[in-house]
Amino acid sequence: MSEFWKNYPEIFEELNDVKNIMKKSIKGSDAYLNNSIIPLVEQGGKMLRPAFVLLSGKFGEYNGEKIRNIAAVVEMLHLATLIHDDIIDNSKLRRGCDTIQSKYGKDFAVYAGDYLFCHCFDMLSKHDYSMENLRNVSKAIKKICIGEIRQNYFRYTSKINFNKYIRIISGKTAALFSLSFMLGASEAKCDLPLVRTLGKVGYNIGMAFQIIDDLLDYTGDIEKLGKATQNDLKQGYYTLPIIFALEEDKKGELASILDSSSFEKDDIKAIFELVKKFNGIEKSKALVERYSKKAFENIKKLPDCESKMILSEVLQTLIHRKY
Amino acid sequence: MSEFWKNYPEIFEELNDVKNIMKKSIKGSDAYLNNSIIPLVEQGGKMLRPAFVLLSGKFGEYNGEKIRNIAAVVEMLHLATLIHDDIIDNSKLRRGCDTIQSKYGKDFAVYAGDYLFCHCFDMLSKHDYSMENLRNVSKAIKKICIGEIRQNYFRYTSKINFNKYIRIISGKTAALFSLSFMLGASEAKCDLPLVRTLGKVGYNIGMAFQIIDDLLDYTGDIEKLGKATQNDLKQGYYTLPIIFALEEDKKGELASILDSSSFEKDDIKAIFELVKKFNGIEKSKALVERYSKKAFENIKKLPDCESKMILSEVLQTLIHRKY
Repeated sequence: MSEFWKNYPEIFEELNDVKNIMKKSIKGSDAYLNNSIIPLVEQGGKMLRPAFVLLSGKFGEYNGEKIRNIAAVVEMLHLATLIHDDIIDNSKLRRGCDTIQSKYGKDFAVYAGDYLFCHCFDMLSKHDYSMENLRNVSKAIKKICIGEIRQNYFRYTSKINFNKYIRIISGKTAALFSLSFMLGASEAKCDLPLVRTLGKVGYNIGMAFQIIDDLLDYTGDIEKLGKATQNDLKQGYYTLPIIFALEEDKKGELASILDSSSFEKDDIKAIFELVKKFNGIEKSKALVERYSKKAFENIKKLPDCESKMILSEVLQTLIHRKY
Repeated sequence: MSEFWKNYPEIFEELNDVKNIMKKSIKGSDAYLNNSIIPLVEQGGKMLRPAFVLLSGKFGEYNGEKIRNIAAVVEMLHLATLIHDDIIDNSKLRRGCDTIQSKYGKDFAVYAGDYLFCHCFDMLSKHDYSMENLRNVSKAIKKICIGEIRQNYFRYTSKINFNKYIRIISGKTAALFSLSFMLGASEAKCDLPLVRTLGKVGYNIGMAFQIIDDLLDYTGDIEKLGKATQNDLKQGYYTLPIIFALEEDKKGELASILDSSSFEKDDIKAIFELVKKFNGIEKSKALVERYSKKAFENIKKLPDCESKMILSEVLQTLIHRKY
């Protein structure tokens, strides 16, 4: 696991438990599946979503076993979406390792992702979770799928615009962030207004997080990121920095490069320069600020406790992340 | 819908309802998703699995709405697996229409399949179904995924053998057939021995059905099938006719052609001749007989009613199908 949670030993330790739950539940499925997915779990990434489940659970009656199990489900869902994303993008690297599809092939990646999705529902049906939350989980993944479908629909076209982008990222990213908060809170029997406020914290953190992620494609460092930069652009995904730049691109300089379906090295360089010239980076950073501000305002409304403090600090760290 | 059920007007009409439930539940999701999936539902195929849900439900307390809903879920799961299968196989045709991936691209097909999987769990969580059946559904899809993974693992290699093949098809096909029978029966509150006997009927029909399907790759008619013949072979899936032939291929004639990873037209012709020479077709047909016999024996044990009679007739029809 990354060192992201090392300043919060209780959460760090619980996330290790979450990992063990994931590994244990995958073991015994199929040797081939097992060998391919366990390293991905080991590697772990930042484990933001399961941590958010734990943190929001602590606002209510905290039943550790139940909450850690649902945190494992959420991280597994995220893994499943990553495996399928990498098929579309033909990505070679994920979390500094070979992607499932680059190592085992597209066929394997399709079914490994499907397996994980169903495994999540299997886990949800085993423990004493509410049918309502099971429905919330399926709805969130449906939102992710629709977000991804829309994102792909607008590949390699300058017809993408601000509103479309916001709809896409609220589906593909913020939905699962928001769900993580709401699942933890509702399984810990928090009252509905509190569940909703935590859901809003998640939504706004998710939006800020995704815009930062999209910014990193233009400003990031490959070694720290553990994945290739300029990847989105090369794959024809035009994200916020480009969208803001297009708004100032009155002569259509940028649009004309973007509407071709592949780029030479010079094109990439030209796009980067135009994005900077038309303030795409600056404006995107300002939007991160806006979503972060909303998230902080939501956090302020939460009852005082350690989780509240941690959420506030974590949000600070995320806003300033370089990887 | 195909004319497969036209001799059973009650089932035919109920299957139309099932289709309408599917269409209604998909509508309102996303226009793009909607437009691509509805034609697939319209086209319908034989709708064996939902029909089996209905028929087995009639052995107990038949709550039409509840049973038709779960029949819709089962058919939707099947659709989701077909969409993902077609990605792997690069298939152009399915049910006589363009496949989702050939029409809308691989990226869309991945998320459309994911969407449908989650949509099924969404539907299951909405109606008053048992958590146990929800678990059974997720387990069955996990079996399908593992079956598919194993099948792909043994592509283009003569190392595939009889036992491996049986494990593969019991996962990828018989599991969902068996589930269809068990879901209908258990949601209609049949007692456990009856649920299990119906599950066995489904398993054995599923095994016979898949072997027939694999035989049709060698003996079928492209226009009647609505999909290309020799497709499995060209994709490197070595099914039962080849596996039986390999057992008699003492000199390794057949194996040497099979272990290359692509075929010329002459190779295909040679494989067909060797499969015939080494009795691959005949022996596969004999195994179909064995599974059918088992299914008939299971059907005999069922309490007398119209569904029992229909199941018996349908099994007869399936064994002799040419498409």
